[in-house]
Amino acid sequence: MTVTLDRRVAAEALGSLILSGVVIGSGILASQLADGNDAVALLANTGATAAILFVLITALAPISGAHFNPAVTFVIALQRQIAPLHAAAYILAQIAGCWAGAIVAHAMFALPLLQVSTHDRSGLSQALSEGVATFALVLAILLVSRARASAVPAAVALTIAAGYWWTASTSFANPAITIARAFSDTFAGVRPADALGFILAQFIGALLASAMASYLMPTRSND
Amino acid sequence: MTVTLDRRVAAEALGSLILSGVVIGSGILASQLADGNDAVALLANTGATAAILFVLITALAPISGAHFNPAVTFVIALQRQIAPLHAAAYILAQIAGCWAGAIVAHAMFALPLLQVSTHDRSGLSQALSEGVATFALVLAILLVSRARASAVPAAVALTIAAGYWWTASTSFANPAITIARAFSDTFAGVRPADALGFILAQFIGALLASAMASYLMPTRSND
Amino acid sequence: MTVTLDRRVAAEALGSLILSGVVIGSGILASQLADGNDAVALLANTGATAAILFVLITALAPISGAHFNPAVTFVIALQRQIAPLHAAAYILAQIAGCWAGAIVAHAMFALPLLQVSTHDRSGLSQALSEGVATFALVLAILLVSRARASAVPAAVALTIAAGYWWTASTSFANPAITIARAFSDTFAGVRPADALGFILAQFIGALLASAMASYLMPTRSND
Amino acid sequence: MTVTLDRRVAAEALGSLILSGVVIGSGILASQLADGNDAVALLANTGATAAILFVLITALAPISGAHFNPAVTFVIALQRQIAPLHAAAYILAQIAGCWAGAIVAHAMFALPLLQVSTHDRSGLSQALSEGVATFALVLAILLVSRARASAVPAAVALTIAAGYWWTASTSFANPAITIARAFSDTFAGVRPADALGFILAQFIGALLASAMASYLMPTRSND
Repeated sequence: MTVTLDRRVAAEALGSLILSGVVIGSGILASQLADGNDAVALLANTGATAAILFVLITALAPISGAHFNPAVTFVIALQRQIAPLHAAAYILAQIAGCWAGAIVAHAMFALPLLQVSTHDRSGLSQALSEGVATFALVLAILLVSRARASAVPAAVALTIAAGYWWTASTSFANPAITIARAFSDTFAGVRPADALGFILAQFIGALLASAMASYLMPTRSND
Repeated sequence: MTVTLDRRVAAEALGSLILSGVVIGSGILASQLADGNDAVALLANTGATAAILFVLITALAPISGAHFNPAVTFVIALQRQIAPLHAAAYILAQIAGCWAGAIVAHAMFALPLLQVSTHDRSGLSQALSEGVATFALVLAILLVSRARASAVPAAVALTIAAGYWWTASTSFANPAITIARAFSDTFAGVRPADALGFILAQFIGALLASAMASYLMPTRSND
Repeated sequence: MTVTLDRRVAAEALGSLILSGVVIGSGILASQLADGNDAVALLANTGATAAILFVLITALAPISGAHFNPAVTFVIALQRQIAPLHAAAYILAQIAGCWAGAIVAHAMFALPLLQVSTHDRSGLSQALSEGVATFALVLAILLVSRARASAVPAAVALTIAAGYWWTASTSFANPAITIARAFSDTFAGVRPADALGFILAQFIGALLASAMASYLMPTRSND
Repeated sequence: MTVTLDRRVAAEALGSLILSGVVIGSGILASQLADGNDAVALLANTGATAAILFVLITALAPISGAHFNPAVTFVIALQRQIAPLHAAAYILAQIAGCWAGAIVAHAMFALPLLQVSTHDRSGLSQALSEGVATFALVLAILLVSRARASAVPAAVALTIAAGYWWTASTSFANPAITIARAFSDTFAGVRPADALGFILAQFIGALLASAMASYLMPTRSND
């Protein structure tokens, strides 16, 4: 890879910013317009999130790999496909970028820039949901990368779209997004107290997905 | 094919689990949020199901063929493209996986894990709907496999998306999913008494689609 | 093309049947479930129609060209890419198939099989809408066929999806579908008295699109 | 490029007309049908706009490049990929085409052809939104053009789809569309007084995106 580290880190930060801005901003507008019907609001939130994921991954994958997600970077570092220090830089950029995205979304909707969420998402079934959602996301990334790499942007977008609905937590599936959403007291928010369990479950789900992918495709014989 | 049978069966079980989890889980969340508007709930259920079908087929087709459906495995076995014993293993894995998916969905939403549906879907027009839905699904699989194999994931996802709406039964079109939905007393459920007619109609629809595809493309001259 | 005429005509009839069944069937279910919100019903109707168009064109294009639309067959016959007698057989199969699709949809929803629509869609602006919708559809087919043939299924599906919303008539854009919808007194129906003006406008729109495409790409120099 | 200028300008005008017609027309129908639920109306408006963008860019890119947007043409002219006089002709065609699209939409819905919007979209956060939206659009175009040119139609469509929701202004992101919407007193309209700030913000966003793309991919080494 000939892309310099500063550009790769900038791509991760920028992609994370836009992704987080879309997740939070579309949640704000959708809940403002949906007249109290949360399913309609979540449909809009889902569509906007999936749409921008396809775009960002397609646009930025040649530069940074388009992770935008510490759990993904962690798994890829375990597979020795990114150096540990580079992975650390990626993760910092993802967290900073996602937080900046929340601030940009708040600015566009003329809301206080810094907020702390009060959205209760507590309970074991919520954490289980995050584990399941991240398992599905990382599994999709690892398997589709081998099966048909050109389909990764669509596969990630659609895995998250499904995750918004089939899990009880609406599938954050991303520690950096979780942190950003803890700092947004809007539709997409999550209380900081609940965010910790989410992040732990996300890393567990990612590790299990990595093990499952290794079992299913051990020798790259299907490339 | 160099993939060992255990991996192929595991892929069928895992894919069926996630598919069933999405069908049932998204039905639960959608009906909770939709404020009584069943069309909004079914839109969300449709989107989530179609999204995950694209992902699962893209990810797992190189391993197991990504059937996730006893009616599909049955037709492919009739065409002698899978050995009868392997087909039997696939079908058992599909049924077990789909049931497990129902249980996972119930766990994420903190519902009783084991349930029996009371959702009435009786009547001849419902069974006719399942025959039509499975006919369309199997026909799409067989024709698109030949016409443009890379489009099979999208074609299956979109055939089911349309099926959710143009049939009166919301297009289960899959005996393993039908069994799992009989064990979920939620939005996507179906009474066990009605499930039997569904499954019979599904196999008839699949056989008719196989015959139609053979008539339309008898000699592979369009490959 | 080595496909025999009987198979080509059967493909046109079958595709038209399923397309019409989806248009009418999804309209029935959507309006039953949408709790009086016609925008929600039309969203579902739109999604189902676009989904099945992608599938049917992908599956059947190698067999018959996947017209399913007399206005399309007419334009292609004018360009001497199909013999007049074959075109006539196509058009009869499209009309018969679309009508059969209406009957299948009625059967699945346990409605009277034969109906006459009372849905008023009269007025010059409605007919103008059909001309515009068919102009856009035929233009998209002709231009995308040359620009990127593999994108035709998506382009047709998405042109119709947009057409359901940006025209005042919900974009039938197809004389065979118009006839079938005249025989369905449901959400998607149209009074026979209004259907005639629709069909006339559709052929005019198709001819104008053919002329516009010839002007924009006269020499195939962009192939 | 062997396409004559008159055909290129005609393609820009025609594409802009249809794009604008879909944006405004689908807004009219959606708000008529949505029973007061603006989120449902905006979902339909979003879907129709994204759908037609995919079609128009796929169909017309080989002829004119499929800009349909003065901010895009401006950035491409700065990169010396289109001559200044040709760019001026493009921009005039885009403005005329978008206005004509508004008139066609009004005609199809039997509304007064010439209107002036009274839709208040004032305030700094609205202008910020337009800057952000156009930044995201132009960045997506420039990066995806290099990363995977065949994905540009989908990327543009999905960037706008996300933009409708994550920005407070519903992401016009296009000066010609902004002018047309100022002349439509319907769901998609914008007061002429607000339109000026929108257009200024759009050009600033486009310039920043051009600079960011140059930083991220300075040497085309990733082609």
